[in-house]
Amino acid sequence: MAPSAPRTIRIGLLGFGTVGQGVWKHLHNNRAALERRLGVGLDIVRIGVRDLKKEREVKVPVARLTTDLGSIVDDPTIDIVCELIGGVTTARTLTERALKSGKVVVTGNKALICEHGAELFRLVQRGRGHYFFEASVAGGIPIIKTLREGLIANRFRLIYGILNGTCNYILTRMAKEGRSFQEVLADAKRLGYAEADESLDVDGWDAAHKAVILAYLAHGRWIKPKQMLVQGIREITPHDLSYARELGYTIKLLAIISRDFSTNRVFARVHPCLLPARNLLASVDDVFNGICLSADVAGSTLLVGRGAGQDATASAVISDIADAVVALRGAPAPVICEEDADTYARLGSGISIASLAEITGRYYLRLTVKDRPGVLAEVARRA
Amino acid sequence: MAPSAPRTIRIGLLGFGTVGQGVWKHLHNNRAALERRLGVGLDIVRIGVRDLKKEREVKVPVARLTTDLGSIVDDPTIDIVCELIGGVTTARTLTERALKSGKVVVTGNKALICEHGAELFRLVQRGRGHYFFEASVAGGIPIIKTLREGLIANRFRLIYGILNGTCNYILTRMAKEGRSFQEVLADAKRLGYAEADESLDVDGWDAAHKAVILAYLAHGRWIKPKQMLVQGIREITPHDLSYARELGYTIKLLAIISRDFSTNRVFARVHPCLLPARNLLASVDDVFNGICLSADVAGSTLLVGRGAGQDATASAVISDIADAVVALRGAPAPVICEEDADTYARLGSGISIASLAEITGRYYLRLTVKDRPGVLAEVARRA
Repeated sequence: MAPSAPRTIRIGLLGFGTVGQGVWKHLHNNRAALERRLGVGLDIVRIGVRDLKKEREVKVPVARLTTDLGSIVDDPTIDIVCELIGGVTTARTLTERALKSGKVVVTGNKALICEHGAELFRLVQRGRGHYFFEASVAGGIPIIKTLREGLIANRFRLIYGILNGTCNYILTRMAKEGRSFQEVLADAKRLGYAEADESLDVDGWDAAHKAVILAYLAHGRWIKPKQMLVQGIREITPHDLSYARELGYTIKLLAIISRDFSTNRVFARVHPCLLPARNLLASVDDVFNGICLSADVAGSTLLVGRGAGQDATASAVISDIADAVVALRGAPAPVICEEDADTYARLGSGISIASLAEITGRYYLRLTVKDRPGVLAEVARRA
Repeated sequence: MAPSAPRTIRIGLLGFGTVGQGVWKHLHNNRAALERRLGVGLDIVRIGVRDLKKEREVKVPVARLTTDLGSIVDDPTIDIVCELIGGVTTARTLTERALKSGKVVVTGNKALICEHGAELFRLVQRGRGHYFFEASVAGGIPIIKTLREGLIANRFRLIYGILNGTCNYILTRMAKEGRSFQEVLADAKRLGYAEADESLDVDGWDAAHKAVILAYLAHGRWIKPKQMLVQGIREITPHDLSYARELGYTIKLLAIISRDFSTNRVFARVHPCLLPARNLLASVDDVFNGICLSADVAGSTLLVGRGAGQDATASAVISDIADAVVALRGAPAPVICEEDADTYARLGSGISIASLAEITGRYYLRLTVKDRPGVLAEVARRA
C-alpha cells in the first residue's frame, strides 16, 4: 500500500509573520509523527519574506529565505504553497499564478476568499491545482472539514456562532468588569488581542467574511458582505450587559446563516445578540470561538475552540497541508470540496439570498425615562 | 476534473435495524445533493436481514432484501459494505471476508473494533480494502475525523468526554427531578433511551469501548477494557447530585484518556466525575455527548452533539460512505487513517499503558454520621 519510494513534499511559505512562524515551528516539532502518518517527507524549502534581515522569534536557515515571492510560486519543484501574507492584491496574484501552474494552495485568507472566491474556485476547476482554507474560519476548530465532510449528509437550517475572538474578548471583559467598550478596547490593544486598527474586528466585518465562507460551503451561494446586515459591538455599553444578565441573557456578537427551506432563501447577518444563558455558546468566553450547526440529520452540533492566534491557526494550516498531501498522492479530484465551483453552483441553484428587509427578529430596547406618570404611554404612542 | 463517465457506487447493508433504516432514509432524502458533491451515483443495491417479512418503518423494494448476508459480502459488484448488525461473531466473520476481498467496510460497531481492531486493521493493511468507523464513537459528532484529520498536527495530553447518552440522560433527570437511579432507569427503558439489558451502558462498558478507540487513534496503542478503571453510575444517588450542585459541581460519567509526555504513559478510564459547573461539558445534558480535546497546538477544542439515535448515527455512516467513495476513486492509500496498523504501531512505539495503580485523582467522600462530639476525629483516625 505504501508508495515504492517515500517522496518528500516540498512546501513554500509566502509570508513569515505570526502564522508562518507557527507553521514552521509546529511542522518541525511534530514532523516525525506527521511524516509517519502521511507516508511522505515534509520540507519547507522556501520562505518568502519582505525583509531578509528582520529579527524573528523562529530561526530558519537564511538560505531558505527570499524576497522574491513569485519565484516560490513559479518553482516547479514546489508542491504546496501556503499563502500567509493576507490582503487581496499581491495574495490574489500569487494565488492565481500558483493555481494556474497546478500547485496546491493552502491559506487562511478569509478576505481574499470572500472577495474573489468565485473566480479562484473556477480557476481551480479549470486547472490541476487545489485550494484549502481551513484556517480562514475559526482558527483551530475544524469547522470547514466538519461542514463539508463530517456532516456531508446534512442540510443546514441554521448556522450561528461566535467567529471573532477580539469582539468576544472585549464583550467578556466588559461583562465581567463593568468597564466601557473604549477602556477594554485600549487594554486589548495593549495585550495584542486587538489590532491597532480595530475596525475590521469590532465593526463585524471579520465575522462577516467568515460567515460568507460558511454560507457558501453550506448553501453553494456567494453572499457579498454588503448584502448582509453587519453591525459591530461599539454601541454596547456595560448597562446593556448587566441588564441582559438580569434578564437571563448574555450579549454575544453572532454570525447567523439561516435558510428557509420552504422558500429556499438564505439569510446571513452579523450583529450583537441576546443569547439565553442556558445556551452553551453563552458560556464561550474570552478569545474562544464557537459554532452551532442545526442540521437535518445529525441534529445540533456545537464546536468550540481557539479561533485565532499563532498556534491554533498553524494547527489548521498543517491539517490542510495533510489534506494537500492526500490530494497530491493521487486522489483524482477532491470531490468533497468547495473548490468544485460547478458542483457548488448546482448545490446553490434555486437558492436565493434574502434582502435585509426580509430579516425579522425580536429586539431588546432599553429606554431611560423620567419617573413620572404617563411616560410609558407616551413612549408607546410614539413607537 | 469530473470522471469521464459518472460511476454508480453499489452499496450493501448488513442489517436493517434502526441505523440501517436511517441510512436508507437519509441517503435517499439527500441523494441528489450527495451525488453531485461526490461525482458518482449512490445505490443501496442489497440489504441483508434476518426476516424478509418483518414490518419495518422504512419500505424498501423486496427484491433488494436477502437473508444471505454472505452473498452481499461476496458480491463482486458491491463496492461498499455497511456492517450494521453489531456483535462480535457474525459481524467479525463478514467484515473479515469483505476486507479480504478488497471492499470498503463502513461500521459503527465499537465492540468489534475494541475487541478485534488490531487484527482487522492488519487485514486492511495486507489487502486492498478500507475500514471506516465514524459512527462508532459519539454518533453524529465527527470526532474520529477531527482526531485523525482536523487536528492531525496535534498531540493530545488529555481527551475526556461524555460518551454514553443513556447514562447522561439518566444522570440529567436524576439531577433535575431528584429521583433515584432505578426509577429513572425504568422510565428510560419505557422511552427507549435505555436497552432492556442496561448493563453495557450504565456499567460504563459502552463508554470504555469508545475510549479504547479514541485512545488508539490518539496514541496508537490498543488498551483492553479490562486494563481500564471502569465504573458505572448505579451507585449514584440523588443525594450525591444535590451535594455536588451545592459545591458548584455536576456529576457526569466521563471517559478520560490522558498521556503523560514525560513518561509516555497512557491512562484510560471511565467513571463518574465531579465537573465544575463552569466547565461547558457540565451543561451537556440529556442524551447529548460531548468531548473535550486538550491538544498541544490547537489548544482546547470541544465538540457537542447527538451521540446516538437513528438520525445522528446515519449521518456518521453516510459521511463514511462519502469518504469511502473518495478512497474508491483512487486515493492510493488512505494515509491519514488508523487502519494503517504499521503507521499506528510506530506512532505508539515507546508508549506504554499505565496500570490501575498508577491512576491518581481527587475524591469526593460523602459521610453520613451521628451529630456528636468526636465523630469526625474518629473518621479521620480510621481513614
